[in-house]
Amino acid sequence: MKKIAYILLSLLIFSACEEKKSTETIEKSTEKPQKPNENNFGIVLHGGAGTILKENMSDSLEAAYKAKLTEAIQTGYAILEKGGTSLDAIEKTINVLEDSPLFNAGKGAVFTNDGKNELDASIMDGKTLNAGAVAGVTTVKNPINLARAVMEKSEHVMFARDGAEQFAKEQGIEMVDSSYFFTENRMKSLKRAQKREKVELDHDDKTAFYDPYIKDDKFGTVGCAALDKHGNLAAGTSTGGMTNKKWGRVGDAPIIGAGTYANNATCAVSSTGWGEYFIRGVIAYDISAMMEYGNKSLQESARKVIQEKLPKMGGNGGIIAIDHKGNVAMEFNTAGMYRASMNGDGELYIGIYANN
Amino acid sequence: MKKIAYILLSLLIFSACEEKKSTETIEKSTEKPQKPNENNFGIVLHGGAGTILKENMSDSLEAAYKAKLTEAIQTGYAILEKGGTSLDAIEKTINVLEDSPLFNAGKGAVFTNDGKNELDASIMDGKTLNAGAVAGVTTVKNPINLARAVMEKSEHVMFARDGAEQFAKEQGIEMVDSSYFFTENRMKSLKRAQKREKVELDHDDKTAFYDPYIKDDKFGTVGCAALDKHGNLAAGTSTGGMTNKKWGRVGDAPIIGAGTYANNATCAVSSTGWGEYFIRGVIAYDISAMMEYGNKSLQESARKVIQEKLPKMGGNGGIIAIDHKGNVAMEFNTAGMYRASMNGDGELYIGIYANN
Repeated sequence: MKKIAYILLSLLIFSACEEKKSTETIEKSTEKPQKPNENNFGIVLHGGAGTILKENMSDSLEAAYKAKLTEAIQTGYAILEKGGTSLDAIEKTINVLEDSPLFNAGKGAVFTNDGKNELDASIMDGKTLNAGAVAGVTTVKNPINLARAVMEKSEHVMFARDGAEQFAKEQGIEMVDSSYFFTENRMKSLKRAQKREKVELDHDDKTAFYDPYIKDDKFGTVGCAALDKHGNLAAGTSTGGMTNKKWGRVGDAPIIGAGTYANNATCAVSSTGWGEYFIRGVIAYDISAMMEYGNKSLQESARKVIQEKLPKMGGNGGIIAIDHKGNVAMEFNTAGMYRASMNGDGELYIGIYANN
Repeated sequence: MKKIAYILLSLLIFSACEEKKSTETIEKSTEKPQKPNENNFGIVLHGGAGTILKENMSDSLEAAYKAKLTEAIQTGYAILEKGGTSLDAIEKTINVLEDSPLFNAGKGAVFTNDGKNELDASIMDGKTLNAGAVAGVTTVKNPINLARAVMEKSEHVMFARDGAEQFAKEQGIEMVDSSYFFTENRMKSLKRAQKREKVELDHDDKTAFYDPYIKDDKFGTVGCAALDKHGNLAAGTSTGGMTNKKWGRVGDAPIIGAGTYANNATCAVSSTGWGEYFIRGVIAYDISAMMEYGNKSLQESARKVIQEKLPKMGGNGGIIAIDHKGNVAMEFNTAGMYRASMNGDGELYIGIYANN
């Protein structure tokens, strides 16, 4: 009986210890071992999510996308590798995408209902939690640069439309004639959307917006997130909005917490998708909050938000993100998302469809 | 020896059970017992936070504020008591505050740098997580009504400036001539701010905005949150922005997640304060996220966000909120905040300064 009591005692003590240990293991298993600082950096970008299917894509167009995604990610990577800041890296990376007609941002911006191009952008610094955003600018070549100027050169976070243009002029930001944003492809998209809208008497199908490249009209935004060698995170997003946009609609791209969020304590995130749902779900910040308060990893948080919470609301799209340890997430619930990443070892990843 | 083993065993088992129980107790202690549904409703509002001090306030002005706060909260309470929706209650409550020149919203909106009144508002439905927002409207009498129309009559969340005005006209929202928003008091504030700005050659002090009523210039917004008898939460916020505002600045009031958030699973929140910090901190949603992922009560979350996280960033202001059990929070880190609440038992609370 004495022996049995001892055995039971030992078992009890052992099981109590085991329980504690397994909890610790679970908590730790979400953390990858930290690399030495010199290689602990990385960058990830997206060029929009949507119904991007291999069968709708020509080989030459696919090659053009891949080339531009590669050029963009390498631009930011080069800055990080030399010890540059994550803010510089994401700004210059986004500039490459903004200057390409392939993406719905900058040069490739879609047209509004009245044939204008209205651009939005936002940026956030994970070190200071400072942020900048602009909505509805029409003559700013690279809206992400203006968002950064709002963050660094004003006490404000967000400027809209003509006010934002005025600030851009005062700050010496590069301006262009609005005709710079004219592309034949985007004009065709607008005409097609308006023709379809006229036919659509049943307004139950309210998605009267369309982007021929990604087979959807609510999508197509560019964004980038990076971790630099100094341990600082940053994220930025830039968009041309929705084809056939009306009423000065503002999507999630210029909304801090929805389209962009960065915090050195957690992660840096840029969103792309059906903007209204990203605003309602506060998607970018939600991933950070789940990490901070729920002790989840970036990967778990991104998956839960994009694959569970967002579809439950009826929304779709994706995010790219990087955490303070260099872990990267590229999560989307659409058929595809233009995306690329490079880690501290210089490994390049390029993806378009669900299975690469 | 046998006895000792038994005692140890019993102690171990007991302590294991105790540990489990105490955890449960802690978790439960944050939840107040749920009242029967008929009385389980409530409403809370704010009329702006800032350096509101008894010594700067005349008796008659204080009485006027208290009377208007009472009228506003009773308006929403009456709707809830009759079984009306939280959305109706907060909209009508905010209308009372918008129609008064005492608050920086609607009729009492402050002037921009070029002598205009640009109004912002947002609303969110905790049941559906749907939301609506408008930024920079100039001829809409009650911007909260337009925000609700954006939420209910469009597939979008946010409209800005002339686009939002166009939508308002199409929806038959009550429009006024922009001269409706002229008040002598607010014009004086603008003149004073501009005079001071001219003198302030050292731009290190960038707070060139001023509201004489609340002894600050970044503040003064109205908002309301309510829980109805059907268990549905809603929140809304309306503002005239900052005195001497430039560059089409957008504050937190029309930003879902920053100025307004509502979710039946957690709480409904409306913010007031230095808008830039509320955007950067995603303040309204942060309180909800801390409840959801951190298992904190509304009171704990609101306190942590407003008394710890916000000041750590350098920001100030306050929030009012109500959770799905009818618990109310009125948290601010400024000298005062115009505020009022009524619970399901009809108990009225009115406060202006820190100690009531």
